[in-house]
Amino acid sequence: MEKFEDLGFCKVDFDREKRTGYPEVIYGENKTVEQMIEIMSRLLYAHGKAMITRLSADKAEELLDVFPAAKYDAVARILTYGVADPVKFGKVLVVCAGTSDLPVAEEAVLTLEWMGCRVDRLYDVGVAGLDRLLAHKEAIQQASVLIVVAGMEGALASVVAGMVKRPVIAVPTSVGYGAHFAGITPLLAMLSSCASGMSVVNIDNGYGAACQAALILRLAAEGAET
Amino acid sequence: MEKFEDLGFCKVDFDREKRTGYPEVIYGENKTVEQMIEIMSRLLYAHGKAMITRLSADKAEELLDVFPAAKYDAVARILTYGVADPVKFGKVLVVCAGTSDLPVAEEAVLTLEWMGCRVDRLYDVGVAGLDRLLAHKEAIQQASVLIVVAGMEGALASVVAGMVKRPVIAVPTSVGYGAHFAGITPLLAMLSSCASGMSVVNIDNGYGAACQAALILRLAAEGAET
Amino acid sequence: MEKFEDLGFCKVDFDREKRTGYPEVIYGENKTVEQMIEIMSRLLYAHGKAMITRLSADKAEELLDVFPAAKYDAVARILTYGVADPVKFGKVLVVCAGTSDLPVAEEAVLTLEWMGCRVDRLYDVGVAGLDRLLAHKEAIQQASVLIVVAGMEGALASVVAGMVKRPVIAVPTSVGYGAHFAGITPLLAMLSSCASGMSVVNIDNGYGAACQAALILRLAAEGAET
Amino acid sequence: MEKFEDLGFCKVDFDREKRTGYPEVIYGENKTVEQMIEIMSRLLYAHGKAMITRLSADKAEELLDVFPAAKYDAVARILTYGVADPVKFGKVLVVCAGTSDLPVAEEAVLTLEWMGCRVDRLYDVGVAGLDRLLAHKEAIQQASVLIVVAGMEGALASVVAGMVKRPVIAVPTSVGYGAHFAGITPLLAMLSSCASGMSVVNIDNGYGAACQAALILRLAAEGAET
Amino acid sequence: MEKFEDLGFCKVDFDREKRTGYPEVIYGENKTVEQMIEIMSRLLYAHGKAMITRLSADKAEELLDVFPAAKYDAVARILTYGVADPVKFGKVLVVCAGTSDLPVAEEAVLTLEWMGCRVDRLYDVGVAGLDRLLAHKEAIQQASVLIVVAGMEGALASVVAGMVKRPVIAVPTSVGYGAHFAGITPLLAMLSSCASGMSVVNIDNGYGAACQAALILRLAAEGAET
Amino acid sequence: MEKFEDLGFCKVDFDREKRTGYPEVIYGENKTVEQMIEIMSRLLYAHGKAMITRLSADKAEELLDVFPAAKYDAVARILTYGVADPVKFGKVLVVCAGTSDLPVAEEAVLTLEWMGCRVDRLYDVGVAGLDRLLAHKEAIQQASVLIVVAGMEGALASVVAGMVKRPVIAVPTSVGYGAHFAGITPLLAMLSSCASGMSVVNIDNGYGAACQAALILRLAAEGAET
Amino acid sequence: MEKFEDLGFCKVDFDREKRTGYPEVIYGENKTVEQMIEIMSRLLYAHGKAMITRLSADKAEELLDVFPAAKYDAVARILTYGVADPVKFGKVLVVCAGTSDLPVAEEAVLTLEWMGCRVDRLYDVGVAGLDRLLAHKEAIQQASVLIVVAGMEGALASVVAGMVKRPVIAVPTSVGYGAHFAGITPLLAMLSSCASGMSVVNIDNGYGAACQAALILRLAAEGAET
Amino acid sequence: MEKFEDLGFCKVDFDREKRTGYPEVIYGENKTVEQMIEIMSRLLYAHGKAMITRLSADKAEELLDVFPAAKYDAVARILTYGVADPVKFGKVLVVCAGTSDLPVAEEAVLTLEWMGCRVDRLYDVGVAGLDRLLAHKEAIQQASVLIVVAGMEGALASVVAGMVKRPVIAVPTSVGYGAHFAGITPLLAMLSSCASGMSVVNIDNGYGAACQAALILRLAAEGAET
Repeated sequence: MEKFEDLGFCKVDFDREKRTGYPEVIYGENKTVEQMIEIMSRLLYAHGKAMITRLSADKAEELLDVFPAAKYDAVARILTYGVADPVKFGKVLVVCAGTSDLPVAEEAVLTLEWMGCRVDRLYDVGVAGLDRLLAHKEAIQQASVLIVVAGMEGALASVVAGMVKRPVIAVPTSVGYGAHFAGITPLLAMLSSCASGMSVVNIDNGYGAACQAALILRLAAEGAET
Repeated sequence: MEKFEDLGFCKVDFDREKRTGYPEVIYGENKTVEQMIEIMSRLLYAHGKAMITRLSADKAEELLDVFPAAKYDAVARILTYGVADPVKFGKVLVVCAGTSDLPVAEEAVLTLEWMGCRVDRLYDVGVAGLDRLLAHKEAIQQASVLIVVAGMEGALASVVAGMVKRPVIAVPTSVGYGAHFAGITPLLAMLSSCASGMSVVNIDNGYGAACQAALILRLAAEGAET
Repeated sequence: MEKFEDLGFCKVDFDREKRTGYPEVIYGENKTVEQMIEIMSRLLYAHGKAMITRLSADKAEELLDVFPAAKYDAVARILTYGVADPVKFGKVLVVCAGTSDLPVAEEAVLTLEWMGCRVDRLYDVGVAGLDRLLAHKEAIQQASVLIVVAGMEGALASVVAGMVKRPVIAVPTSVGYGAHFAGITPLLAMLSSCASGMSVVNIDNGYGAACQAALILRLAAEGAET
Repeated sequence: MEKFEDLGFCKVDFDREKRTGYPEVIYGENKTVEQMIEIMSRLLYAHGKAMITRLSADKAEELLDVFPAAKYDAVARILTYGVADPVKFGKVLVVCAGTSDLPVAEEAVLTLEWMGCRVDRLYDVGVAGLDRLLAHKEAIQQASVLIVVAGMEGALASVVAGMVKRPVIAVPTSVGYGAHFAGITPLLAMLSSCASGMSVVNIDNGYGAACQAALILRLAAEGAET
Repeated sequence: MEKFEDLGFCKVDFDREKRTGYPEVIYGENKTVEQMIEIMSRLLYAHGKAMITRLSADKAEELLDVFPAAKYDAVARILTYGVADPVKFGKVLVVCAGTSDLPVAEEAVLTLEWMGCRVDRLYDVGVAGLDRLLAHKEAIQQASVLIVVAGMEGALASVVAGMVKRPVIAVPTSVGYGAHFAGITPLLAMLSSCASGMSVVNIDNGYGAACQAALILRLAAEGAET
Repeated sequence: MEKFEDLGFCKVDFDREKRTGYPEVIYGENKTVEQMIEIMSRLLYAHGKAMITRLSADKAEELLDVFPAAKYDAVARILTYGVADPVKFGKVLVVCAGTSDLPVAEEAVLTLEWMGCRVDRLYDVGVAGLDRLLAHKEAIQQASVLIVVAGMEGALASVVAGMVKRPVIAVPTSVGYGAHFAGITPLLAMLSSCASGMSVVNIDNGYGAACQAALILRLAAEGAET
Repeated sequence: MEKFEDLGFCKVDFDREKRTGYPEVIYGENKTVEQMIEIMSRLLYAHGKAMITRLSADKAEELLDVFPAAKYDAVARILTYGVADPVKFGKVLVVCAGTSDLPVAEEAVLTLEWMGCRVDRLYDVGVAGLDRLLAHKEAIQQASVLIVVAGMEGALASVVAGMVKRPVIAVPTSVGYGAHFAGITPLLAMLSSCASGMSVVNIDNGYGAACQAALILRLAAEGAET
Repeated sequence: MEKFEDLGFCKVDFDREKRTGYPEVIYGENKTVEQMIEIMSRLLYAHGKAMITRLSADKAEELLDVFPAAKYDAVARILTYGVADPVKFGKVLVVCAGTSDLPVAEEAVLTLEWMGCRVDRLYDVGVAGLDRLLAHKEAIQQASVLIVVAGMEGALASVVAGMVKRPVIAVPTSVGYGAHFAGITPLLAMLSSCASGMSVVNIDNGYGAACQAALILRLAAEGAET
């Protein structure tokens, strides 16, 4: 098979799975339904699975008509078809600070599941009420990788990273107002964190955090297999 | 006495103590030693006490020659002369996140002492090691007013504000690098905090936080006297 | 009673009143009506009172059907149920610069009333016509705590803080255009104020200012009771 | 005479006085002493007067050796030679908020004097102590044009503009720290002012404000002569 | 008559005309029709004239029903009633760079007319085609005051200010895209101008520029009368 | 042993190794030599190893006098004492774009070595000459974790992340000028990357990237041991 | 013919073609259909060809009724009438990174065609899959001028510029989210590029890039003719 | 010859001349003298010519000891050795706005000369005195490519681009203060220019502008040779 196919408006990258571990994922924000059908058909033919992120509910409906075996989640705004081989090591814990961060957290969870990873949720444990967080200390410390999703001042990421010996991937969210600047503030705060072992992805990028977490888990799984 | 005296380059505000609770304080950053001597002489004559903030060690030395009864603190960069009547109620707790925040925390402490308030210190309790903070839970909850000084991502302020039923005044510091923007990041983070009952002052403004804390304590003291 | 209850999408914090002085308040901006009904039911069961901020009129209508004893204010966008025990000391004065700042000022006023505080209003006294402000000098100086709400250049906060010996909490508003940056300009101006004894909360955060004012008044009330 | 002379590194604009009312003024910041001597010689030959702004004391000394009839002011950092014909109408009042704003205020004053305008000073009347300002209400209201120089939050400009029926030119200064951003905050605040009849020049640009004030006074003087 | 009347939501400032030269002008952006009717009635009673800026067409229609003698201009978004006494000296020239800047330029023109000033227009003379500007050199040089309205990079203001011996007031507009930042770029460019005798008002603030121009013309007119 | 020891100015966190995988590391930027000696002594006593980052050469010299067994690297500005147990799985590849990024890359390399990880270097392979990068394709694809250090526009990180199935940690550096904003530009570019599986740390934070890489390698090593 | 015609709201610049190589192009964003008809009529009369950019589909429809010989492209949002004389040298290659950048790339392509230039497309060759780009190395190196259109982190421009000996014009696009700031990030990244021979135009300014490319090609064509 | 040589700290790119038209140029800012000697030796051996930009005078002196045939220009801060084959077509005109922009303009001029291009200077023709610019209209219109260097508000670039049918490359400089933000303002202004046919390079990047101009001239020269 060719490394990519040229559809004119786009070049579908069949080689990506071999190169980077997972097939190309379709970013749904600025694409027409027609474009997505074309690309998805090629991806399904080549890989047997596909995923679209940032997909609006109305576009999803049209796609489900064409691909009835696909599944759409309205909170995460993700459409998936098929699933990757299971990653047989470890577990990711997705932690989020408040109710409003759910869509981003769920984008991470669904991406991880599609990528074959085991994943748990720990939601609404913002630092203004530490008891809620400390009550789940054990679960936090037993995760292999942690994704911390937080808007507002993003302090949850620093607190969690200070509790564990595992890599933490912080995801700032655009939830907030005024001096929050649609996510810039938690983004900068997470980058300036006093805790070590933590890195950051773009605002609302639950998908990106999940990708890196999956690559980490797969590396560890390969370690486990050797 | 006139409400103010005109020195040409400056108008000394004698009425300020009556109006706002404390005499005018001299901001030392951009003033010459000569200017400060002139202003301080007037203030001492009118109020019997005076304070200079942001004072460099070499200028302080010259001022101590003229006012040998004054005291200078090189960490807080504050020179004080005399002290206000004691505020007979409550206590302020000054909490700071890391060793590098000390100068700002000490600026707050010395200002509070000069303003007659009782004050305790709790230093180096950043959120990357929550145990250090939780070990002092009782002291934190017994303070009347809390000043939280933090650089980096400023998360400490949110965590402390979530633990107490007392007003918290957050002071971001300029300690950090890169995405920290010399204090802008903790400033924005504190303003976007998920915790209630907290307000914020300018970057490195330990003095300003202390002023407000002193006014709060005096209000409560007046309440106690009625 | 447990410290919190896990509703899956959210963990209701029953311990907050004991810990921070007031029950958890619901931030209505990004929540569905269903979520708010669930949370509010728990809070009413535990505390007998509840408040929702940033609530749109149409969502409010649905909530009033379920909780007919609640009250909704369309200007402040606040829904309240019940009221806290009265704070038996002092009074808060909410000052605002112009007609356009009313929603934020009213958010502060209604929050204070729900928190049991006495509160007065002084509206439309922007510094471009100082007479309006100076005509109320006495009322300003007799308040225990002042909340100053201002958009544009936010100068009112500095002027008021220079007139009183009480703590001033400044609230920048998003009212303005161009170089006003939706509230960033008065926010920065208030943080850079030449007046002492003043602190700042986030843009449009009338609720946050009210919280801190209530905590200050309660501290003073406790002083008065001792 | 030619409209300009080409010195290679610079083209001296002899036509500027006729075109814009005043001869070219030398901006001293990035020029060598040699360059300034060359340009100043041409300007003196053509106009009989010259001015250099932003001139450091050590460069000034070298220039005074060459042009002993020139005068240098170390606070304003201005060197002048000669003076324009007197503007026979009105008076400019230069108002400044604090002691630290003096260099900028003096840059305005000396520029105005060199441009032949009458000018008065009113210094250190920041809004944190309104009495100092209100005590000079009459002088403020009798000025023909007002230049208001202020750092910190820049509130003085709005307050003054609300008191007068004359044009106000606001000059933000770089005096401040943290959220003050070296003058950006008062600049934005002055641009967002709630007062009318006011315009703004660049940070620390006392010279620019003086230029516009002089043009206004000359227009009025021409009116008076007709 | 009292200096102001308290309508609760607003304090109408009757003293402003005496103090600052013109009656209070209503900023229509965030006000309800009812509020504007109330305020306008008081202003008309006190001054016999009134003006509302930033007024949408639909609100204007309702106001015209109540005040049939008022006039509304849909481009400038201004409603006027009556007119000030004529200013018997000089003329303002409103220059604009492109077709898209018209609404702001017209806001300036209509404000000036309402304030009794003579005013001329010179539109669409952006610097990318200098001939259009140079063809009107004489008109430009004969104006008493110039208001230059420009979006994009705002270069027109510098070019015009370099051609005249009269005060220039620059108005950046929000017309542009990308690196133009809704007017921030021409605002900063105008503040950094290499031309003297120029000052700047807020983005799209045609009204503010007109106010200052009117005050300048009235000063000159008073000069002419003495 | 206690979890931490209180030195007054600082609380040494002995529990951190157990909690987060590695002992506390001293950030040398704002600490005095005396403070560092005190803290380092405690850390050596508790853990037998220690590391100081951002340490100037002159302070390092004083510390080497006290701890002659320590080693100092002037490029990375790191002092180490002892080394962690070797991590028996995988290898980190530190890639950097240009010669100027070396100090940051070396900070990562030395931290990794101190943390017991195997690490290789691939330097000066910026995207303006792709051949240099492509010549090392195999080495790039065989690394377990990649740290990509780049200033300028930071494009190298995206290109590398598109070539591998392993986690990539991007480190923007402050090397550049003008629109580079001391590292903000590559920081934002890396956060906006079109490549997946990549996360970002603060500007110049080679240490932080190394921490996360070490945690990933240890997780995989644990996988390999199970 | 006059150099320009004054339509009141606008001055049509007939001289522009002679002066700058191409007739005035109409920026359609803020103009009414009536205004565009008026201007376009004059341009067609003077030059026999015309172009409107940033034209919405509904306005285009009205214009096509009036000018049935015109052509409208809905992706590029461009309306053209006629075409310039062919430029008989070289070819421009328009490269774009992703599907979402198409509208900007097409704006460049159609502008170039209207300006008489030969142009090729190379789309969806983002750096996350280098093979797609390297597969077209020859086409890239044979182009006379390259326009590189990219959103996200804009890395494609640096990579392409490092491959060729021809001028590269980079166009950042507003496609992205969060730290992408609607195009600011690729704009800054392109300006900070490590590759030489590249310059940058405004965000989404496909038209501007095409203009410069056309001027370059015409210069070379003139070279070829001499 | 290999495409590059690996010096460990750097990989010298011998292939660049063939690929991009000119040999690698050394950016001197952050390199040690030793590093530069190593790299320059290799480049001279491979290409017979070399250039270092942003080189301080003291480092230059050391390099001249090693390479006595090299030439150093202290204003442009450039060291050159040898020169490229002459480009036998056209001429570049480097225009600058003010005396302070000279170092950047000279960086462009010397780079062009080293690259074999013919180049003329037109200095100190800022738009505040248009006559100086218009006096050179013919020279401006006869250039093949124009580089416009300007600080302050950067308006000169727009004015020049509106006068010519040749490509204009704009270079903002860091000369200015306050709202100029060390070059950000002219950078943004140039990007937002109302003139077509213009592109922009980074602040102070005279070298980059020269590179693109040289590539354009060489393309045209190749055209001329065909």
